[in-house]
Amino acid sequence: MKKIITISREYGSGGRTIGKIVADQLGYAFYDKELIDMAAKESGLAPEFIEKTEQNISSGWLYNMMLGSSYAIGTAGAPPGTNNPILPLADQVFNAQRKTILQIAKKGPCVIVGRCADYILSSDPDTDKKTLFNVFIYADLEDRIKRAVNEYKVPADESRRIVTQIDKRRANHYNTFTENTWGDRTIYDLMLNSSFLGIDGTAGIITEMAKKA
Amino acid sequence: MKKIITISREYGSGGRTIGKIVADQLGYAFYDKELIDMAAKESGLAPEFIEKTEQNISSGWLYNMMLGSSYAIGTAGAPPGTNNPILPLADQVFNAQRKTILQIAKKGPCVIVGRCADYILSSDPDTDKKTLFNVFIYADLEDRIKRAVNEYKVPADESRRIVTQIDKRRANHYNTFTENTWGDRTIYDLMLNSSFLGIDGTAGIITEMAKKA
Repeated sequence: MKKIITISREYGSGGRTIGKIVADQLGYAFYDKELIDMAAKESGLAPEFIEKTEQNISSGWLYNMMLGSSYAIGTAGAPPGTNNPILPLADQVFNAQRKTILQIAKKGPCVIVGRCADYILSSDPDTDKKTLFNVFIYADLEDRIKRAVNEYKVPADESRRIVTQIDKRRANHYNTFTENTWGDRTIYDLMLNSSFLGIDGTAGIITEMAKKA
Repeated sequence: MKKIITISREYGSGGRTIGKIVADQLGYAFYDKELIDMAAKESGLAPEFIEKTEQNISSGWLYNMMLGSSYAIGTAGAPPGTNNPILPLADQVFNAQRKTILQIAKKGPCVIVGRCADYILSSDPDTDKKTLFNVFIYADLEDRIKRAVNEYKVPADESRRIVTQIDKRRANHYNTFTENTWGDRTIYDLMLNSSFLGIDGTAGIITEMAKKA
């Protein structure tokens, strides 16, 4: 029985929803956006700023476009009026999230979506690796585009570019803060295309494997 | 219910054994080495030669070392006494195997291990993609080394190098004959680390997913 399940996912693959279903099926705690708030409290940084810094690490234009932010590219991640260079500040945010993830994992069984949790826990000397189940969820591009348009209200005419770009940012964020490469199979116990069995079917397989292992 | 299951696998991951168990559980035909013989009959080339050409495509030294072959590197794959350059001959072999795989898939439900079957069937306009289930099996390196030593009698002191090298050859063979990149997730419906649930557990998940899809 695996006690800590981390879910990395392509944008639009339904990975977050799948993680929530798995957590419900197993009676585990579920962490996603909540994590940001908890990390924020830890660091003393505002939650909105943590979210922006994390997502903004690679380039500003898409995120700014989507959220209507007025931050200029180049100072992406730095709040207006500050001169903080991006990396040290991003490191502060990452470290705050890292601490939070390690605390969460000590508290009890849980599902954690994104946030480099697979790396943070796998590389932590105090975490029992036998309790860990690292999952990567992906999906056919057309299904991801559909989901982005229908569920996340991404503009249809920009959807292909946005879906691809968000994944590049996720990869870039992961690769910036870890020794691993996002999506590299050696990191994960399971990589599943959610287009194959759908959201519920995919969640069912993960739950079953967590129970059997 | 998926009717055609292709299994690509890292060397030492147990992928061939897993494929056999899945075929038995589903009552499907199973194809691996047999495929070479059938392709051989089709092409008129000797089975032993087909096997050597296929495995020798990238470089000769390791394979020669392991099998005690006397073929020189550079003419790797060409039988003694012939002047055939490697690629056209390798293409003949690939085409013969391709034809055989397409024939097999038309015959009835089956599990096919290796041989670029995922690409051959996915890119074939006459194959119904809804019947296809493409799986990639990998495993922790230490488990693969153990399996190579225990089951395939690879010399222990050379095992790490041999396991890594054979995978490089598999990747090279696949990448030479297809438009895809071996191990790239977009090709597969499922990628599973067999170290997680073991051989039988992994086979069970594949069988279940084939039934549910």
